[in-house]
Amino acid sequence: MLYGALEAGGTKMVCAIGDEKGNILEQAKFPTTEPSETMESITGYFKDKEIAALGVACFGPIDLDKSSKTYGYITSTPKTAWKNFDIVGCLKDALGIPIGFDTDVNGSLLGEVTFGCAKELSDALYLTIGTGIGGGVMTNGRLLHGMLHPELGHIRIGKRAYDRGESVCPFHDDCLEGLASGPSIEKRWGKKAIELAGINEVWELEADYLATALVNYCLTLSPKKIILGGGVMHQEQLFCLIRNKFKEKMAGYIVTKELEDIDNYIVPASLNDDQGILGAIKLAMDSLQGE
Amino acid sequence: MLYGALEAGGTKMVCAIGDEKGNILEQAKFPTTEPSETMESITGYFKDKEIAALGVACFGPIDLDKSSKTYGYITSTPKTAWKNFDIVGCLKDALGIPIGFDTDVNGSLLGEVTFGCAKELSDALYLTIGTGIGGGVMTNGRLLHGMLHPELGHIRIGKRAYDRGESVCPFHDDCLEGLASGPSIEKRWGKKAIELAGINEVWELEADYLATALVNYCLTLSPKKIILGGGVMHQEQLFCLIRNKFKEKMAGYIVTKELEDIDNYIVPASLNDDQGILGAIKLAMDSLQGE
Repeated sequence: MLYGALEAGGTKMVCAIGDEKGNILEQAKFPTTEPSETMESITGYFKDKEIAALGVACFGPIDLDKSSKTYGYITSTPKTAWKNFDIVGCLKDALGIPIGFDTDVNGSLLGEVTFGCAKELSDALYLTIGTGIGGGVMTNGRLLHGMLHPELGHIRIGKRAYDRGESVCPFHDDCLEGLASGPSIEKRWGKKAIELAGINEVWELEADYLATALVNYCLTLSPKKIILGGGVMHQEQLFCLIRNKFKEKMAGYIVTKELEDIDNYIVPASLNDDQGILGAIKLAMDSLQGE
Repeated sequence: MLYGALEAGGTKMVCAIGDEKGNILEQAKFPTTEPSETMESITGYFKDKEIAALGVACFGPIDLDKSSKTYGYITSTPKTAWKNFDIVGCLKDALGIPIGFDTDVNGSLLGEVTFGCAKELSDALYLTIGTGIGGGVMTNGRLLHGMLHPELGHIRIGKRAYDRGESVCPFHDDCLEGLASGPSIEKRWGKKAIELAGINEVWELEADYLATALVNYCLTLSPKKIILGGGVMHQEQLFCLIRNKFKEKMAGYIVTKELEDIDNYIVPASLNDDQGILGAIKLAMDSLQGE
């Protein structure tokens, strides 16, 4: 059986066709311009592919509450053309097949849980650190939505006294995204992250902020694995720094077999940047089960 | 049908008999001394009560992993006599009935979700602020355990520059429990919380720390309600301060109908300090369903 997958991002839309084993058979990309144009490209792509269902891992905030009148909508996004856009309804009308729908980061996590490094774990966390910071969460084998959906990038982590940078978040002066996203690194040091690769103090501070956040997520969600993706994490030296600072900050308060094996607890994304599209395939599969 | 409930605390053991409607028919308390003595009182109490099952809401850390060899044990508690004590095994041997088992704070949350102010909510959080700080979490209608169980009291919240106090946590210099528990208030101001009731700066700082933590939990777990219990929360002026600082710190980043009604979002425990025992009754009921 074939499934469609849409990774809906604020700058591009990745469309793919795959199967239940996680094979991606073909892929296409379209720029995210305004809804009528972009959706025509997307529905045109999927129309004759004989897919049984489509999964959508979507930028947000989005409405995931199936009892809500605006279920399937992109809601209060700063991308004004997409604000209050009924993306699920539009796809359902054009394609007439079941549509699975979740956040982009829940999609990435679902990809890792289904086909990647978190296979069969009931409780896991995926965090992406790039232009923004966001995360997907699974608890008791199910993706977490709750009141809305997690907004992990905006937890308050306390600005270090020696940090001369300024938060890039328009809402918060000391949230994780404001102090540790790609743009915040660039603003603080005056260069892009990639040009700062050899400068230790850049990554010491970055790892300190990220490790503080991971300790808080760990104590709150108790995941069995934490997966880190996104552009900033291409700086591979970060992993070792983050793991050491995580242990330092946890200070032995929690003892579990998972934390004893920290190299397998805090890990990079494992699916060559296909975790989102693979998660969308699983969302499509689950939509047939009425999940 | 009758159910037994045990709220197992570090200083006392509360035993009760109740029914599925949340009626508590009788209750007894025994001091927590050493296991052989205390367990004899407990099993003696329950022995002839004709209960169908017993629910235990227990101080921790405890092992909740049913596939583990030490499931049902109290694990690394500082109360040395109880370290690695098989409390579920002991009760099962003595009483020969199904035993439901969870943390004390998950018990309190379950009480509120089943019989109290969070009735029928799928996602909720209960935080107790007293001698220590701890919390129970429900997501997608199920209590959260994950790798271990949440340890909400130990998230790092950043010490305020103007705070002349010192953390009372032996592990962390800026965790919530270290800076906002009852003993930390007493150490900082040199008096018990109850004697400080009229002093604004005490509660402004306390509310600031608690609101920071609640914002972080909200962005991580996305609960539909946050319930605050424990001795410190008997200072009722705290609720208004916490709600205002919560809104200030969230800064409008998330918009939901629940947050718009903040007085019904951050609320006091509703069951006259019986939430733990009522949750234990529900744990007993669920143990018959093999939950």
